[in-house]
Amino acid sequence: MDTPARSLREPSRDDLDALAARLDAGDLLLPGMDRFDAYLREPRDRWQGQAAAVLRPRTTEEVAAAVRMCHDRSIGVIAISGGTGLVGGQTLDHGAKPVILSLERLNRVRAVLPDDGALIAEAGVTLAEVQAAAEAAGRLFPLSMASEGSCCVGGNLATNAGGVQVLRYGNARDLCLGVEAVLADGSIHHGLKVLRKDNTGYDLRHLLIGSEGTLGIITAAVLKLFPAPGETVTGMLAVPSPAAAVKLLHALRDRMGDGVTAFELMAGQGPTFIRRFYPDWRDPLDGDPAWRVLVEITGPAGGDLAGRAETALADLFEAGLATDGVVATSGQQREAMWWLRETIPEANRRVGAVSSHDISVPLSAIPRFIDEAGAAVAAIDADLTINCFGHVGDGNLHFNVFPAPGRTRADHDGDRPAIKSTIHEVADRLGGSISAEHGIGRLKKADLARFADPVKLAAMRAIKQALDPNGILNPGAVLPD
Amino acid sequence: MDTPARSLREPSRDDLDALAARLDAGDLLLPGMDRFDAYLREPRDRWQGQAAAVLRPRTTEEVAAAVRMCHDRSIGVIAISGGTGLVGGQTLDHGAKPVILSLERLNRVRAVLPDDGALIAEAGVTLAEVQAAAEAAGRLFPLSMASEGSCCVGGNLATNAGGVQVLRYGNARDLCLGVEAVLADGSIHHGLKVLRKDNTGYDLRHLLIGSEGTLGIITAAVLKLFPAPGETVTGMLAVPSPAAAVKLLHALRDRMGDGVTAFELMAGQGPTFIRRFYPDWRDPLDGDPAWRVLVEITGPAGGDLAGRAETALADLFEAGLATDGVVATSGQQREAMWWLRETIPEANRRVGAVSSHDISVPLSAIPRFIDEAGAAVAAIDADLTINCFGHVGDGNLHFNVFPAPGRTRADHDGDRPAIKSTIHEVADRLGGSISAEHGIGRLKKADLARFADPVKLAAMRAIKQALDPNGILNPGAVLPD
Repeated sequence: MDTPARSLREPSRDDLDALAARLDAGDLLLPGMDRFDAYLREPRDRWQGQAAAVLRPRTTEEVAAAVRMCHDRSIGVIAISGGTGLVGGQTLDHGAKPVILSLERLNRVRAVLPDDGALIAEAGVTLAEVQAAAEAAGRLFPLSMASEGSCCVGGNLATNAGGVQVLRYGNARDLCLGVEAVLADGSIHHGLKVLRKDNTGYDLRHLLIGSEGTLGIITAAVLKLFPAPGETVTGMLAVPSPAAAVKLLHALRDRMGDGVTAFELMAGQGPTFIRRFYPDWRDPLDGDPAWRVLVEITGPAGGDLAGRAETALADLFEAGLATDGVVATSGQQREAMWWLRETIPEANRRVGAVSSHDISVPLSAIPRFIDEAGAAVAAIDADLTINCFGHVGDGNLHFNVFPAPGRTRADHDGDRPAIKSTIHEVADRLGGSISAEHGIGRLKKADLARFADPVKLAAMRAIKQALDPNGILNPGAVLPD
Repeated sequence: MDTPARSLREPSRDDLDALAARLDAGDLLLPGMDRFDAYLREPRDRWQGQAAAVLRPRTTEEVAAAVRMCHDRSIGVIAISGGTGLVGGQTLDHGAKPVILSLERLNRVRAVLPDDGALIAEAGVTLAEVQAAAEAAGRLFPLSMASEGSCCVGGNLATNAGGVQVLRYGNARDLCLGVEAVLADGSIHHGLKVLRKDNTGYDLRHLLIGSEGTLGIITAAVLKLFPAPGETVTGMLAVPSPAAAVKLLHALRDRMGDGVTAFELMAGQGPTFIRRFYPDWRDPLDGDPAWRVLVEITGPAGGDLAGRAETALADLFEAGLATDGVVATSGQQREAMWWLRETIPEANRRVGAVSSHDISVPLSAIPRFIDEAGAAVAAIDADLTINCFGHVGDGNLHFNVFPAPGRTRADHDGDRPAIKSTIHEVADRLGGSISAEHGIGRLKKADLARFADPVKLAAMRAIKQALDPNGILNPGAVLPD
């Protein structure tokens, strides 16, 4: 299934010496050295990667020199930064061993430009560090997700990361004004423009963003900053159904405009899992509701956001769109609400999913997707457990399937292909996507081949051939064989 | 300067018959027919286009059939919709005559989906029609510019149009969720997904958007709708300098957040030109200020936006960032303020510019750009008149140069190359762009060759070759020779 270009070859001792000669001592790791194996893992332990060496360049020029050498010698290059991707984009488990090019030492915030509403960060800066640099300048960098302490700018852009504030601020690509990138032949694209408008030819930035390291290696980026919100209102509401949640979102946006920055749906199964591992957890809502939403609304100070938001929520409660609710009155309460949302993925991991799905559908199709995908899974095995949660405002659900009570993941190994297939079919039938925010990597190549527009696939292949004719960049990822 | 691929040939009688056979009667126009010549013009009358025929297909399939035929026969195809572009992208004035493919009959709004925050419109729908369809559904489509009555979705996306609300809502590309497009070989890319998140391979949408018809022909698009603002505050303020205008913008955004949707700077020269052609015009501001800004702030109803905005503006006035100001108290007053801003380009046309420039720089560099570009123009001829206005919130200025008093455009013909060159040099030196929102077309190819990152240019050529190997799509546009 996962066949890198056949012409690639494993680096020889000579090749490795040549690569090492361009780096400082200690910036090239070989198998058997301390820490080497850490670069071969991915968070879900589905793949055991392999590599001939790990390069840790310190500058864009060193990245370029290494890539040029690999291009000339037909050696595969897998770029990684935080390594938190969930679809195996960072691991190659067979074929000619590549070099792993870790961007961890490109870790400078090169400039913070509050007066331009921007900052420039290298690929190895963590998302949390970017957020902190923005905050220190009185601005907001809104990209936010559970892995923000370890995921990095390079990977955020290479995978077009999403997260919890896309509803208001967009995906990673929408937050990037320009990139510096090393292309497959080792040339450096200097595109770090701090501009809101720049219509000068094809948008190389958007082509590189989301290409998962297969068309170029982003080494630095201009990131867009926003006015820091002066007031934040966070609430948790029990809702009678997913359909009511979608109606609630529309009604709330009609009342509060684009101030609604997060709108996260959680099935009751999430708290059920949470209780299993965190028995001291106290639910802010009573009665263990079947569905709940976490809502966050932000705005500038001095606009009585709290008063307006509470009035709006009370009206929507009256209208039957919510059956219970609580608004955080302290930072601690707010954090407790977010803790629930952000700990659900961890609880899921500890339970151990049979199959995890990151789908999106048009907003109006959310309730139908939940119904139809649930029925389709039940038809495979009525005892399977579903935990559905996600970014409803973006039409993006994480629809994860767990073993039936008393059974294990292994008991369901035979069901996995059918589960995955049926869930993706429902998403596709409703006009949706089989990968909303995680990308294709190696996990979803076959799904891409099955569900993608064939004309798009042909264009992707033509572009890959044009920009990386030797096929060295992240061999075997994204493009179906 | 403008050399289409040499292998293209002019359609023969046979070719035209074959194209006509795929269309309804009357959907192919030949030279000499009524209305034919209208397709050969562009708004600034810099070029007289030429074409062997004008095709007016009614469906995407008809577009595809025509493009396939042209691909197989190596005939150039220039797609146009509203034809309002300002850089000659719609006209080819020499070489083998192409066919013009007018998208005017692909003029349906295919779907309005308020519950998905989207609508689907064909390439020939005017921007004003899109705005109206959104409004009828209680939503906002925020793309807005002076030509909105005649420019169309196809051209808006092909050129990544900007306009007056980019500060808050982004450029055309940011407002598009998916496209349907005919590629150079006549294949149809079906990408009309109504999704906020979809990470399934390379972003063909963003590659086609802004490619000015050289990589594919967008036939329909999913456009993003927003909550309609419940309250709008519009004001016109005299400011002591461009530097004060930039400070005012920052201070206002700190107070009002992203509610600031438009922030347009105008030099006193604009009103001076206006008075020449519209002697009855009454300036809402006294004393003929050297600089003014038009500010618009929007928000949901019920938030006392007007009260908060007026307090903020009064404070900024106190701080010396504005020296005079008036807030519209009626729709009529609001329209009068916008009339000024939107009529300046028309007044400019009537005066007749020696040279027009659509540049962008980082926001903080706006004052320096105005100073340095002004000094550079004065060094060429101290009597030249400059009219500077534009979308300061986006760092985007229209910096137009007019004849010295008592002289004509023709008197300055010899100065034009030096003026253009020096203004572009200043923009480039400040990290700016030589085309903020108008694109490259044929007017700015030489500038692109001079100022663009060479690695980007090489990648553009490789992509063009990969996706349009016969070079039939908009031959001679965008890519430097």
